[in-house]
Amino acid sequence: MLSIAVIGAGRIGQIHASNLAARASERGDLKIFGIADAVDAAATALAARVGAPVVTAEAALASPDCNAVLIASPTDTHADLIEQAARAGKAIFCEKPVDLSAERIRAVMGVVKDSGVPLFIGFNRRFDPNFASLKARIDDGQVGDVELVTILSRDPTPPPVSYIERSGGLFRDMMIHDFDMARFLLGEEPVEVHAVGSSLVDPAIGAAGDVDTAAVLLRTASGKIAQISNSRRATYGYDQRVEVHGAKGLLRAGNIHETSVELATGGGFTADPVQPFFLERYAAAYRLELDAFLACARGEKAPSPDGEDGLKAQLLADAATAAAQSGQPVRL
Amino acid sequence: MLSIAVIGAGRIGQIHASNLAARASERGDLKIFGIADAVDAAATALAARVGAPVVTAEAALASPDCNAVLIASPTDTHADLIEQAARAGKAIFCEKPVDLSAERIRAVMGVVKDSGVPLFIGFNRRFDPNFASLKARIDDGQVGDVELVTILSRDPTPPPVSYIERSGGLFRDMMIHDFDMARFLLGEEPVEVHAVGSSLVDPAIGAAGDVDTAAVLLRTASGKIAQISNSRRATYGYDQRVEVHGAKGLLRAGNIHETSVELATGGGFTADPVQPFFLERYAAAYRLELDAFLACARGEKAPSPDGEDGLKAQLLADAATAAAQSGQPVRL
Amino acid sequence: MLSIAVIGAGRIGQIHASNLAARASERGDLKIFGIADAVDAAATALAARVGAPVVTAEAALASPDCNAVLIASPTDTHADLIEQAARAGKAIFCEKPVDLSAERIRAVMGVVKDSGVPLFIGFNRRFDPNFASLKARIDDGQVGDVELVTILSRDPTPPPVSYIERSGGLFRDMMIHDFDMARFLLGEEPVEVHAVGSSLVDPAIGAAGDVDTAAVLLRTASGKIAQISNSRRATYGYDQRVEVHGAKGLLRAGNIHETSVELATGGGFTADPVQPFFLERYAAAYRLELDAFLACARGEKAPSPDGEDGLKAQLLADAATAAAQSGQPVRL
Amino acid sequence: MLSIAVIGAGRIGQIHASNLAARASERGDLKIFGIADAVDAAATALAARVGAPVVTAEAALASPDCNAVLIASPTDTHADLIEQAARAGKAIFCEKPVDLSAERIRAVMGVVKDSGVPLFIGFNRRFDPNFASLKARIDDGQVGDVELVTILSRDPTPPPVSYIERSGGLFRDMMIHDFDMARFLLGEEPVEVHAVGSSLVDPAIGAAGDVDTAAVLLRTASGKIAQISNSRRATYGYDQRVEVHGAKGLLRAGNIHETSVELATGGGFTADPVQPFFLERYAAAYRLELDAFLACARGEKAPSPDGEDGLKAQLLADAATAAAQSGQPVRL
Repeated sequence: MLSIAVIGAGRIGQIHASNLAARASERGDLKIFGIADAVDAAATALAARVGAPVVTAEAALASPDCNAVLIASPTDTHADLIEQAARAGKAIFCEKPVDLSAERIRAVMGVVKDSGVPLFIGFNRRFDPNFASLKARIDDGQVGDVELVTILSRDPTPPPVSYIERSGGLFRDMMIHDFDMARFLLGEEPVEVHAVGSSLVDPAIGAAGDVDTAAVLLRTASGKIAQISNSRRATYGYDQRVEVHGAKGLLRAGNIHETSVELATGGGFTADPVQPFFLERYAAAYRLELDAFLACARGEKAPSPDGEDGLKAQLLADAATAAAQSGQPVRL
Repeated sequence: MLSIAVIGAGRIGQIHASNLAARASERGDLKIFGIADAVDAAATALAARVGAPVVTAEAALASPDCNAVLIASPTDTHADLIEQAARAGKAIFCEKPVDLSAERIRAVMGVVKDSGVPLFIGFNRRFDPNFASLKARIDDGQVGDVELVTILSRDPTPPPVSYIERSGGLFRDMMIHDFDMARFLLGEEPVEVHAVGSSLVDPAIGAAGDVDTAAVLLRTASGKIAQISNSRRATYGYDQRVEVHGAKGLLRAGNIHETSVELATGGGFTADPVQPFFLERYAAAYRLELDAFLACARGEKAPSPDGEDGLKAQLLADAATAAAQSGQPVRL
Repeated sequence: MLSIAVIGAGRIGQIHASNLAARASERGDLKIFGIADAVDAAATALAARVGAPVVTAEAALASPDCNAVLIASPTDTHADLIEQAARAGKAIFCEKPVDLSAERIRAVMGVVKDSGVPLFIGFNRRFDPNFASLKARIDDGQVGDVELVTILSRDPTPPPVSYIERSGGLFRDMMIHDFDMARFLLGEEPVEVHAVGSSLVDPAIGAAGDVDTAAVLLRTASGKIAQISNSRRATYGYDQRVEVHGAKGLLRAGNIHETSVELATGGGFTADPVQPFFLERYAAAYRLELDAFLACARGEKAPSPDGEDGLKAQLLADAATAAAQSGQPVRL
Repeated sequence: MLSIAVIGAGRIGQIHASNLAARASERGDLKIFGIADAVDAAATALAARVGAPVVTAEAALASPDCNAVLIASPTDTHADLIEQAARAGKAIFCEKPVDLSAERIRAVMGVVKDSGVPLFIGFNRRFDPNFASLKARIDDGQVGDVELVTILSRDPTPPPVSYIERSGGLFRDMMIHDFDMARFLLGEEPVEVHAVGSSLVDPAIGAAGDVDTAAVLLRTASGKIAQISNSRRATYGYDQRVEVHGAKGLLRAGNIHETSVELATGGGFTADPVQPFFLERYAAAYRLELDAFLACARGEKAPSPDGEDGLKAQLLADAATAAAQSGQPVRL
């Protein structure tokens, strides 16, 4: 029996808990140990919804009946929780980022390594069926050597400035997913980071010291190039596109429209907006990511993405933040 | 508490039972009364999967704790089960068709009417989010008066001849869904049916007296026209397309590809095949259809599609069968 | 030197004369003998535009310097002109239809046969690069045996009723192109014609005894099926689509949008309307059709489509007209 | 009468001369003064094809009957020819670039300014109907303020190394078009240029000191961002895409496929490769560009793009070349 505690009952914790409950209903060897959240009402509501008890993180970590933890609490609690869970011998799923400080991530990884538990980092996009299929086709050699990767990510609307202020900035909070995707698709580590950022969407974001529109250029040691662009606002939905230009061809994965309906009139042919945000766009990705973690927790395979992936993406985000501020590229 | 017995644990019964279990896990006022099937092992396996007891249809109908039945047993049992369920005062969901004989359907409808219970017929495609959205836009006037409806349905591979032999023929077994869709989109009853059919896919189907490739022309009293074409075999997936030409424009709903990935090489730009068959293509439709039935069973709305819709589609299928055999159109 | 007289300086004559002039400017062995039209001003204007003399049809046919005629005059003059040109030994290009009477067409074909001149009929759509490519892929076996052909043609706006009245009706005037396309794609002669037609677009068309919305079902001796639908009005442009379902797959050729630009907003993703009408949509087809005729006139290849193709399409149009009026299918 | 000398009878000169001849055949007030080329045979062949005399550049510039020159000779002759033509009072169309040295361009522009003749620079892509329509929609406010511009250009195959060696490098030879497009779409001057380049396609290009794969980040004073990426090789055709993300939405213009035909089989849905290279892709752009120049030569409007546009694009290309070599961004 694999018994998993969900720590954090917010938006992401709810997704994981629902997916866990659905998987548990399908097989007899999986259950939710309990739901923990610093806010009692949040834990209680989610626990009721998925038919699991309310627990504390401490109790979960202390219980020999709990084998694994799924950490979806606020970012500033991740590092401590991972260390505690590692020392308690639990398999660990942690939402990105492990921490906003690369130094702290390295320390956490040391603890995890010493403990020997698997640490799985929630870069959910790798599990999106479209991006996963694209990656499988790269690995299958369908486009030959990868040369140029282009990633476009646009959120539908900017978060509140209060969120922006404690987010670590666009490169660490939003583009971190794209850094992970770039590494995933390039199959090589970027060694050079150029970045530009502007506040064009909401002046309050600029006033808070962050940017809402940004673009990055990455280069690997062998000369492969990746381009990433982000905007905090897209009127037409959550824009998530990837393309890979290789020696033998091009692979791309586009957006998913809300329906397949098209209306043709004198004004043209109109298709639906794309799926509004990550809950819809990555619903399947969250399910498949959880399955991958379950396989790790059962010892069937090594975690991927792991702490090293979390660290590498964070280092790229740090480099981009510094590059955008200084106007000079950063070498890694 | 709404307690629903699932009668029939085959492919379709499994879909409905899983969807019922998922909905039941989300709300406290819904449960599966039990799973019934003439084959014990089928009932037992499905019951275990959804955490419900094995029951007999008779026991379910006799129990005051069972409020509704979901009939997914073989076609030749539908009519009797509906009548028994109606007399027992249960809300009824029945998979299409009610019966292969229009006469028998009329008799069943009389019993249902006398009993006052809701009878909901499982024309699942009306609930597909794409087709439902298209229909909503017709009703919203986006293309003005409907003039020409085009429906293309292609199965990926023909069923075994043993299935064909007791299916009632392509028009009743496969095109029945398209007749319902044509009525749904035309918003008017067809009064004239032209049909041609051929056996081009599998000579054994022709030898069994059926066709595997067919097309139909329908006309309503006001002159609206619908075209339907079917094939029992499509190499590229389950092809399900609808388009509506109206006075102000065109609405169409296309297929859903397996992923959004596209590969470009010297050979061209290749997208994935479309979703392979109805389990994938209509997964959302089955869920939404069930929700519509639950609302009927709770008395919140009238059943739609109802027995009358089942009868009308069957009459069109009968007319097309006769028209294809005689080579002469049938007037209704 | 190939010297070609253009008879008829209307809309279609202008297209052909311009294409002839462009080809003539590229090679030394081709010229326009002259432009003839019953309306002097029309002949004069077109002659000036393409740098050719004004002539009469009689003079052209009588001149040994004229080798070929391109007949784009009103339909009721076609048959006589073809016969005269054939007797004068000229290679002949004639716009469809040869005549509205199949009997008359047969007589004309006899004269042409006796004379030994090539007669090329202007079914321009066969030369559209998209449809020609689709046909080449059928012939290449890419979809195996053809089973189901679907043709959708929609004009942007209905012609004036005065035109409708002398047009021979929708099946002969508009759907004739689709009958030719169906024969082209089926690779077999239809033997059974079902047709329905309605006046939904403009009541004045119905009052004039014609239909503006129609659909046809064709079946060949071996059981292949074709579906055609027509409307005299499409708000979104000139809709010209073809698809062929075969044993090994599906081939389709879609519309061409005015530009490749797409606008995405909260209202969705909007592409341009499709090309407005045949001048734009079939510009390349007219050029390539002319090249094919020039090769015939030079004796390099046999005419295709020829008089037989013109006759066969006309017989299908006649059959559809009768079928729509009687409500009974017509066997050929 | 506008009489234009074409100087240079190579690939681009041939396009312009053919378009001039076609336009001249349509109106009485335009003619080709003559064709000049350092290689006699080239001038003779092209002159024969378009029905114009062979001339020398000197004779054309000296003749009072010649009003304008169209310069399509090798790059290193452009600057001198522009100055001579300006001093001779001729309207000037010059293919990009004016010169590989920005200093030299400035000197040329001084001469042009003093002479008062119009100087039109051949950035043909601005006249592509797709890109022109996209730009018109930006100007129409359809996406609000422009924030992020993404330009992807990929040639089908790299040119010979002998060409590369005297090309000025990828940024000046190939990406120059994209720099002009970025300026066109941004509506603001970039002030910061980041660039990375690699030789991934052909090691001989790297050995010649150039790159074949490159990406650039531009930022304007107000913070707008543009991303450009280039590759010298694309297996699937000539890839030319542009997209503009603005405050109110997204505009994009995609590639044009060779035909609209799609083949669906078990392997997926395959569309044609995109048009192979610039002759096909920009055929309409060259025609429309010429019309724009003719309007300038007739004094009907000011040249656009003009020498200033040529200079600005060159300065961006110089900056990108320096940035890629140094690894440091260049401020303008």
